[in-house]
Amino acid sequence: MSFSNYETLIVLDRGPVLEVQLNRPKLANAMNLKMVHELMDVMNTCAANAHDSQIQDDQKSHRILLIKGNGGNFCAGGDIKDMQAAHSAETQEQKVAALAELNRAFGHMIQLADKLPLVTICALQGAVLGGGFGLACVSDYALCDETAVFGLPETTLGILPAQIAPFVVKRIGLTQTRRLALMSQRFKADEAISLGIAHKQVASDNWDEELNKALKQVLKCGPQANQATKALLHSVNECGSEEALNSILDQAAKDFANAVLNGEGREGAMAFMQKRPAAWSDVQVKDVEDVTAAADAKTAVANAGQE
Amino acid sequence: MSFSNYETLIVLDRGPVLEVQLNRPKLANAMNLKMVHELMDVMNTCAANAHDSQIQDDQKSHRILLIKGNGGNFCAGGDIKDMQAAHSAETQEQKVAALAELNRAFGHMIQLADKLPLVTICALQGAVLGGGFGLACVSDYALCDETAVFGLPETTLGILPAQIAPFVVKRIGLTQTRRLALMSQRFKADEAISLGIAHKQVASDNWDEELNKALKQVLKCGPQANQATKALLHSVNECGSEEALNSILDQAAKDFANAVLNGEGREGAMAFMQKRPAAWSDVQVKDVEDVTAAADAKTAVANAGQE
Amino acid sequence: MSFSNYETLIVLDRGPVLEVQLNRPKLANAMNLKMVHELMDVMNTCAANAHDSQIQDDQKSHRILLIKGNGGNFCAGGDIKDMQAAHSAETQEQKVAALAELNRAFGHMIQLADKLPLVTICALQGAVLGGGFGLACVSDYALCDETAVFGLPETTLGILPAQIAPFVVKRIGLTQTRRLALMSQRFKADEAISLGIAHKQVASDNWDEELNKALKQVLKCGPQANQATKALLHSVNECGSEEALNSILDQAAKDFANAVLNGEGREGAMAFMQKRPAAWSDVQVKDVEDVTAAADAKTAVANAGQE
Repeated sequence: MSFSNYETLIVLDRGPVLEVQLNRPKLANAMNLKMVHELMDVMNTCAANAHDSQIQDDQKSHRILLIKGNGGNFCAGGDIKDMQAAHSAETQEQKVAALAELNRAFGHMIQLADKLPLVTICALQGAVLGGGFGLACVSDYALCDETAVFGLPETTLGILPAQIAPFVVKRIGLTQTRRLALMSQRFKADEAISLGIAHKQVASDNWDEELNKALKQVLKCGPQANQATKALLHSVNECGSEEALNSILDQAAKDFANAVLNGEGREGAMAFMQKRPAAWSDVQVKDVEDVTAAADAKTAVANAGQE
Repeated sequence: MSFSNYETLIVLDRGPVLEVQLNRPKLANAMNLKMVHELMDVMNTCAANAHDSQIQDDQKSHRILLIKGNGGNFCAGGDIKDMQAAHSAETQEQKVAALAELNRAFGHMIQLADKLPLVTICALQGAVLGGGFGLACVSDYALCDETAVFGLPETTLGILPAQIAPFVVKRIGLTQTRRLALMSQRFKADEAISLGIAHKQVASDNWDEELNKALKQVLKCGPQANQATKALLHSVNECGSEEALNSILDQAAKDFANAVLNGEGREGAMAFMQKRPAAWSDVQVKDVEDVTAAADAKTAVANAGQE
Repeated sequence: MSFSNYETLIVLDRGPVLEVQLNRPKLANAMNLKMVHELMDVMNTCAANAHDSQIQDDQKSHRILLIKGNGGNFCAGGDIKDMQAAHSAETQEQKVAALAELNRAFGHMIQLADKLPLVTICALQGAVLGGGFGLACVSDYALCDETAVFGLPETTLGILPAQIAPFVVKRIGLTQTRRLALMSQRFKADEAISLGIAHKQVASDNWDEELNKALKQVLKCGPQANQATKALLHSVNECGSEEALNSILDQAAKDFANAVLNGEGREGAMAFMQKRPAAWSDVQVKDVEDVTAAADAKTAVANAGQE
């Protein structure tokens, strides 16, 4: 088993634990298509080994996939540059297809992570946004420290958390997901834990010690029992809706593509680059008093007209 | 777009925000059929505008529906008077049909609110009971203050939270809904937030300021992105069960009607009006000690007989 | 209605409340097949009475099933002795069948408890593990005190929480269940409440007083309304998946049997009896530094070879 020559990942074979570090530290580990494919490569290899292993061979296959970010951030979301390439397609139809395919790739990666036959642990520090947030939502266990910042910024950019939303709903329910997605508020460790996105907040001083404790705790459990249990839990939660989920994600990818290509997506991207609020933020909420006064005035005029 | 001439609502056009105040303050905004129909009228108009709007026209259509109660209460539940009218039908069959239709209307209204293509914000003060509780459970964001009192009092009246229950389950899960519905306990803001019914508690002194903050936060998000995201989240949560939900609500409406017409519903209503505990509350729980002693005595007698 | 002659239960008829005490105190009320059958007998009798009762007869049938453990523990899980009997079957096929049937019986009992037309209250003290944990997860209301210890120890024994997992997922969601099942951590009252497994922590000094309060609160609700509401809540949560659930539980029972018969199950049982860590716990996690250093050395050698 060899995990080398990755452009966007550092992979460390730590015996029963395979540690993967997202490794584009200058970009806060923004996830590009290359990273998506490399993550899928790592996970497919792990999964194949896990399924092939015999009881006697347990020590040889990995039992935990530990995902970290290199350089103080977990992952700041999708890399906007890949999208620009998709824009270069000739026809509108081809643009939609290219963007949808790009977006759908993220979903495939998250689906793979969600069902991974290993125990997945996410170590969350710094930015945990967009796709990084999605990845955290499919972990079996997530630790975070006081630097972690969580959020779904997509709608403030005029786009959808298309491939992420289903996994956030599965993680924290429809209610809280509606709020997070439709208000795009960022939040910290304490709220992430109360929502159930992360399970434990740890002071960054005790970070490695606490991570090791978690690894040891998992290793107390039978690897095949854990594998079968994880599959069982997924089957319970689904009751035949995997097909439905795939079709939702396919549709969401198209919606995403259209959002990017239509006015809001463009404006959102432009506003982001120009470090200004997007056009749609620039509206004024009238005060209750003003509206009531105006309505009264109007009524008075109308009544006057009737006299 | 005109929202006037409502009997039970005050509607304020505040630019991107449409503010609706439930307006039967002397009755703690108890929801009668008139209010249900007027709310549906407002929401249908909003929804039609939201779906028709072009990118360029966003400033013209409303993006947030803000629901408040006038006079210090959000909504104390369904108005019992409408039910009395349904009782006047001639045959038992007609009574069941009338009550079921009445009850089902509430469900239609809540379904409409749940899927509204605008962001729905509920501002919860005072009574948030029965139907008011149901409405809060389909908001995208809910603020409450220290005066808010939440609860599902239906079963203490011998009736079912028939049209509300599904939305409470969707909001806070089966576990907590079972407890709330089967024990009918009232609770305050802190528990509402820990359950996820409301998202934030605000001191009533800062009420308007905090509401405005929430409105501004939503307005940072792209209106069409938000609309598509909300639809996506719903589709994820359902995976083909909309039909099932409708059939559940249809059946629940009939169960409701039967509950009203049978003994418990009558007793519950009568006890409520006479301000006394319902007959079924008037039972004594025997102490463990007494029961054990009695059983021992019985056994002693039986043993004596065998000698 | 007679509830006597039980080997593993104490049953107290307390008027509207039927109190059942799991009664194998020397074994921390470990649940054997006998106890499963006796619990089902009690519940089937209650359910039949509840369904037959007319409005006028409400006082005569039980409205609350209160489940306690005798001797300071609720229930420490399944009794390992029954499994040993199943091992004595002749062929491998017969062993699988016997173990699956045994395991499935637990699931049938929990399914029955989940849907019981009475309000089910669990009083949780001491060990609340495995099957006891599963039973707590289908209660309508659960009180616990400071002595309660919760957990799913199955995977540390190389087996699956096969018949329990679905009900844990229903109770606290997939996210938290993954962590609890795949890490097998034990936890106390405060976490049980924040997860929603129990609803209220009570000091053991106020135990009886608080239990009585809960009973009185339930008795304020109409018995038939509660019965219909509980059925409604279940139907909402399912939307046609009862069949799927049965098939999941059937499959899970077979997976359980295979886990017991294969290496991990044997090793887990043996380690448990010998009071030593199971073989699979005995692996070393390499430090990041070591792995990195080794990789660097390897790269240096490879590079040297290329020169």
